[in-house]
Amino acid sequence: MSRALVTEKIVAAKLAKDLTWAHVAEEIGQSKEWVTCGLLGQMAMNEHEAAIAARIFDLSDAEAKWLTVPPYRGALGQEVPTDALLYRFYELIQVYGPAMKALIEEQFGDGIMSAIDFSMDIAKEENPAGDRVVVTLNGKFLPYKRY
Amino acid sequence: MSRALVTEKIVAAKLAKDLTWAHVAEEIGQSKEWVTCGLLGQMAMNEHEAAIAARIFDLSDAEAKWLTVPPYRGALGQEVPTDALLYRFYELIQVYGPAMKALIEEQFGDGIMSAIDFSMDIAKEENPAGDRVVVTLNGKFLPYKRY
Amino acid sequence: MSRALVTEKIVAAKLAKDLTWAHVAEEIGQSKEWVTCGLLGQMAMNEHEAAIAARIFDLSDAEAKWLTVPPYRGALGQEVPTDALLYRFYELIQVYGPAMKALIEEQFGDGIMSAIDFSMDIAKEENPAGDRVVVTLNGKFLPYKRY
Amino acid sequence: MSRALVTEKIVAAKLAKDLTWAHVAEEIGQSKEWVTCGLLGQMAMNEHEAAIAARIFDLSDAEAKWLTVPPYRGALGQEVPTDALLYRFYELIQVYGPAMKALIEEQFGDGIMSAIDFSMDIAKEENPAGDRVVVTLNGKFLPYKRY
Amino acid sequence: MSRALVTEKIVAAKLAKDLTWAHVAEEIGQSKEWVTCGLLGQMAMNEHEAAIAARIFDLSDAEAKWLTVPPYRGALGQEVPTDALLYRFYELIQVYGPAMKALIEEQFGDGIMSAIDFSMDIAKEENPAGDRVVVTLNGKFLPYKRY
Amino acid sequence: MSRALVTEKIVAAKLAKDLTWAHVAEEIGQSKEWVTCGLLGQMAMNEHEAAIAARIFDLSDAEAKWLTVPPYRGALGQEVPTDALLYRFYELIQVYGPAMKALIEEQFGDGIMSAIDFSMDIAKEENPAGDRVVVTLNGKFLPYKRY
Amino acid sequence: MSRALVTEKIVAAKLAKDLTWAHVAEEIGQSKEWVTCGLLGQMAMNEHEAAIAARIFDLSDAEAKWLTVPPYRGALGQEVPTDALLYRFYELIQVYGPAMKALIEEQFGDGIMSAIDFSMDIAKEENPAGDRVVVTLNGKFLPYKRY
Amino acid sequence: MSRALVTEKIVAAKLAKDLTWAHVAEEIGQSKEWVTCGLLGQMAMNEHEAAIAARIFDLSDAEAKWLTVPPYRGALGQEVPTDALLYRFYELIQVYGPAMKALIEEQFGDGIMSAIDFSMDIAKEENPAGDRVVVTLNGKFLPYKRY
Amino acid sequence: MSRALVTEKIVAAKLAKDLTWAHVAEEIGQSKEWVTCGLLGQMAMNEHEAAIAARIFDLSDAEAKWLTVPPYRGALGQEVPTDALLYRFYELIQVYGPAMKALIEEQFGDGIMSAIDFSMDIAKEENPAGDRVVVTLNGKFLPYKRY
Amino acid sequence: MSRALVTEKIVAAKLAKDLTWAHVAEEIGQSKEWVTCGLLGQMAMNEHEAAIAARIFDLSDAEAKWLTVPPYRGALGQEVPTDALLYRFYELIQVYGPAMKALIEEQFGDGIMSAIDFSMDIAKEENPAGDRVVVTLNGKFLPYKRY
Repeated sequence: MSRALVTEKIVAAKLAKDLTWAHVAEEIGQSKEWVTCGLLGQMAMNEHEAAIAARIFDLSDAEAKWLTVPPYRGALGQEVPTDALLYRFYELIQVYGPAMKALIEEQFGDGIMSAIDFSMDIAKEENPAGDRVVVTLNGKFLPYKRY
Repeated sequence: MSRALVTEKIVAAKLAKDLTWAHVAEEIGQSKEWVTCGLLGQMAMNEHEAAIAARIFDLSDAEAKWLTVPPYRGALGQEVPTDALLYRFYELIQVYGPAMKALIEEQFGDGIMSAIDFSMDIAKEENPAGDRVVVTLNGKFLPYKRY
Repeated sequence: MSRALVTEKIVAAKLAKDLTWAHVAEEIGQSKEWVTCGLLGQMAMNEHEAAIAARIFDLSDAEAKWLTVPPYRGALGQEVPTDALLYRFYELIQVYGPAMKALIEEQFGDGIMSAIDFSMDIAKEENPAGDRVVVTLNGKFLPYKRY
Repeated sequence: MSRALVTEKIVAAKLAKDLTWAHVAEEIGQSKEWVTCGLLGQMAMNEHEAAIAARIFDLSDAEAKWLTVPPYRGALGQEVPTDALLYRFYELIQVYGPAMKALIEEQFGDGIMSAIDFSMDIAKEENPAGDRVVVTLNGKFLPYKRY
Repeated sequence: MSRALVTEKIVAAKLAKDLTWAHVAEEIGQSKEWVTCGLLGQMAMNEHEAAIAARIFDLSDAEAKWLTVPPYRGALGQEVPTDALLYRFYELIQVYGPAMKALIEEQFGDGIMSAIDFSMDIAKEENPAGDRVVVTLNGKFLPYKRY
Repeated sequence: MSRALVTEKIVAAKLAKDLTWAHVAEEIGQSKEWVTCGLLGQMAMNEHEAAIAARIFDLSDAEAKWLTVPPYRGALGQEVPTDALLYRFYELIQVYGPAMKALIEEQFGDGIMSAIDFSMDIAKEENPAGDRVVVTLNGKFLPYKRY
Repeated sequence: MSRALVTEKIVAAKLAKDLTWAHVAEEIGQSKEWVTCGLLGQMAMNEHEAAIAARIFDLSDAEAKWLTVPPYRGALGQEVPTDALLYRFYELIQVYGPAMKALIEEQFGDGIMSAIDFSMDIAKEENPAGDRVVVTLNGKFLPYKRY
Repeated sequence: MSRALVTEKIVAAKLAKDLTWAHVAEEIGQSKEWVTCGLLGQMAMNEHEAAIAARIFDLSDAEAKWLTVPPYRGALGQEVPTDALLYRFYELIQVYGPAMKALIEEQFGDGIMSAIDFSMDIAKEENPAGDRVVVTLNGKFLPYKRY
Repeated sequence: MSRALVTEKIVAAKLAKDLTWAHVAEEIGQSKEWVTCGLLGQMAMNEHEAAIAARIFDLSDAEAKWLTVPPYRGALGQEVPTDALLYRFYELIQVYGPAMKALIEEQFGDGIMSAIDFSMDIAKEENPAGDRVVVTLNGKFLPYKRY
Repeated sequence: MSRALVTEKIVAAKLAKDLTWAHVAEEIGQSKEWVTCGLLGQMAMNEHEAAIAARIFDLSDAEAKWLTVPPYRGALGQEVPTDALLYRFYELIQVYGPAMKALIEEQFGDGIMSAIDFSMDIAKEENPAGDRVVVTLNGKFLPYKRY
């Protein structure tokens, strides 16, 4: 699939040019979370953003166009992630899942947190006992419709 | 498994007595996230906390004791959750996973966010366009050891 | 799980009393699709509706209360349904999936049809060559958020 | 598989030429749902339609011929779709499945809605609270034969 | 599930009373294939047939009623059957599947053999080199609809 | 795997030359069911038959030789077929499986229908209400050995 | 399923009475391999053998009858056995599978070793370096039929 | 993986040169079972044996070297084999598994038959009623260690 | 299965009596690792050990007897463990697996570490930066047999 | 994925040059366990170490750079390893898992052994009855955080 090849090219170019995702995101003018997600093939950019990305990563016009297409989402290619960093997030669903469900429903009623009208922020919290990763998930609550 | 029966009894008692998890957590004296997780069979309480829980939910001594045992964790009984609320969190790993991995490694180096030295907060952000669920994950960064 | 037992009791009572879902829905005052979905353990009713259901199906107070709890959704207990009627809908996703994705994205942009802010209608279209089932799915379009 | 390569070529050509599925369908003279499904490798066209498609997408004769062969159906290559848009439809089967089964059987008797003698329509319903996707599934009812 | 219990009761009664499926089918007045399928919980009888079955297998009124409900089909509870007799039929799909697809499409065009408007016959062909099982599957051809 | 490439070449040649499986089978001198199965990589031909096939499909000597090797059988590459035509046969096992087992054992005793000492016939039954596919499976009964 | 209960009762009785499978097989008058297989619910005995088994294991008449019914075969309830002793046999298929296929086909032609017209013998080979398990599998070769 | 390519080359060369595994094994000087297993990528040869194999199959030095590396074992690439010949061995584990476990433990105590200190022999038993495949598995018994 | 019930009873009795596995192992006279493994249903004790266990956990004679039977091993009931503590060991196989294989083969040749002639030790290493778990696995090397 | 190609190149070069992992690790200046794990694509080296590896294995600059990127971990590509050596470690989790969990929790409290702040040692224990593999796992204990 062509989109996969564009992603591969971007990753290789980033390595060769010693770029950081944060720096690329700044040039493109959106958050580092959303831009990284898009460059790794999971979000669709507009043409202006794709053009900046094309300049940074030396993409052809056809390759840049792929960045603007809504991708077939789902990056892992496996149901349970084997990567240690990603598995920990999966483990949280297994361990905290029922509590998350219980508390969101207690505070909001029957519905879900949208994964579409959604933003994410990843930050570093300095701590003498060891720095901490702080991931903030922010999604619109969508109540189940009655009819 | 006996722990499962204790969980079932707690859930039924909560329904019958019209309790909220937030209120129960306050009585037990820990965060609502950790307490709910424990009462739903995924965390181990100390004996004092278990005694309070036993009083609230009319548990026998033997049942209260189960609350203090480290449980066999993993609440879902399925690899991909079918519940709509929980699936959205799984979907985030599929869509945002590579970006989370890329950004945490860019900011922290090679390692993971601990799911053990970890806390979670679930809050409501009022918003005229629809309230938003804000989930904050806070875990210690653990760098891969070299040797 | 208690909710499963309530569902089983409702199904057995409906059979014993020769009720129809359409008639029950009328008494409860919502669409037959939503009410059936709720009585089969996949939607949460309000207390008034649960009380009517309790009267119709001879449920106890505790059983009626279960009808008001957001359920753990996912009714099939298997990834691919074996039931012939249900499999056809799964097959549609396999066969029409890419076309649905392509056309919704062409008409609406990058996003999804909500399965939460959603309604369904099932109707019969009389046809001399064989009656036809007409299922109309109506869900709010949710565009992917940029940030 | 050659059919897969033809599909890939069509998708790339559509992107390069800025075509819309709706416009292509109009030229081919069938509904946009059926045509898109066929161009994405899930339906078989007749020779006339394949010839029009070949002209639009610059296909060779051999490639055009592939469009007329009944394909090996099943586009996803995975049991549970990870794409957010497609997963919502799978979720509907999980949540609404038993209700759909109950209501179709109540209205029609024991049988299924055909996925073969079947048509689909995807429309946009404008709505100030957010546009809505309306998917109408229309399939012949097939009663189980007795013998 | 109650239907499963009715099936179990029928199987036990048949064993205790030394009945044959062929004899039971004769009393009920339909083919042995369809009747056995129904008594094993995969087809729905009418009330008259259920009454005969109830008399033969000593079923209560409530149990007989279950025989008239369209069942949740899918008898195996596993994707690949482990039973040797049933596995051979699964193996035929793995080995002959593409040939069946190619030949049915060559003779009929693009479509399927219905599994609903369908009948089956199981017969014994005496043969000095070892008797042969002859299974005849007869289903209506359903062409894919164009629209 | 080389055998897969030979199969692919045969399928492409058949399409390019507008051949029918029935016609090819006639030239090779065996039934259309067995020949199609062999050409699609699931049966082993003798050298004479492979030579005829090589002439028809323009195969090299090495490619023709592959047709004479017992293949690694199993054509689908998935446990549950997604193709609509093939799924119907899988569905039959799910729905009719227990009845087939019960009736074959009732008529023959404990054993199986061989899938090796086996032949299949696919025929068209003309019918004003819609033509019917008739698939006849004929396999030797193999009783379980006692020892 | 009743057969499972009979198996469980036999296993418990054997433990309570300190019986050996070899001794039971001798009384029943067939090989220890076949008898053990039958008593564990995978083979069907005749009435005489079932009567002896009933006497040894204190089975009721109804329970003894279950021993004469062809069982739904497949004892493991999982695709890959977790038991260490059984896994080794599975591992042999993974490691030696292609060699077994290659050598049987070289010696016999295209076909299979029957698992129905089949017998097994398990013996102990005394060896100063450690006794050895010798399992002999003996099955009729079944050539693929041509037609 | 390079080892897979070496295996492919060996299989193609054997076909082109009309060799038999038995003949190759004789030249290499080990049993046909072990040699075939090694040439198909599941056992490691010594350098002398690899050199003979290289001569027979026209392997380069680098390719011959791969034959001496302990391979990543597991030849099937699927949990349940679809090939008919191999499936029968899998079926034996499903049907005879519990009996094998019971009898080996009865004769030897708690432990396993080694699949490492193991040899296999495949022979033909001529029989007027149809030749028989005789597979003899011979593995060291390993008792569970107590400590 | 009766063995599972004995395990459940042991776990409940241990909790009620505030026993430690280490203390129980001392009374039984074997290592804490082996004894815990046996009491949790994965190893077979001799009669003397089972009698001590019976006294400690108030088991009946029949229950004690179950402790002496080689169990059907495999404690998890899932392929990938969801429990956080156990998952880490699974993760080690995913991350270190190829290195373990490479190094064991480099030091020992082609073969495996036995999981049968095997012992395990779990110890605590005090450390001011946080105590460490030290797990020592000790298994006999078994070279692949050549023949 | 480029990292996989670098791994493949390293493995081939090691074979061609007759290197040992132990020797390479010595040159790189870390333990043989960590270095092998890194060269097989599961750990990230620093630039100095990558440069040494590049010299040893003739890697280009771009290839050497890949060695410094945190990899997507998970080397097996399957949930249950089929390789005999690796499977034994998986079997240990199935058989000893509950005992490991019970004993670590008894000695340390509720928490896990880190697989990140972790080291491994593989050694050979000479033994006249057969050498033994000794694998020592050493990981920091991480207690579950309460909050």
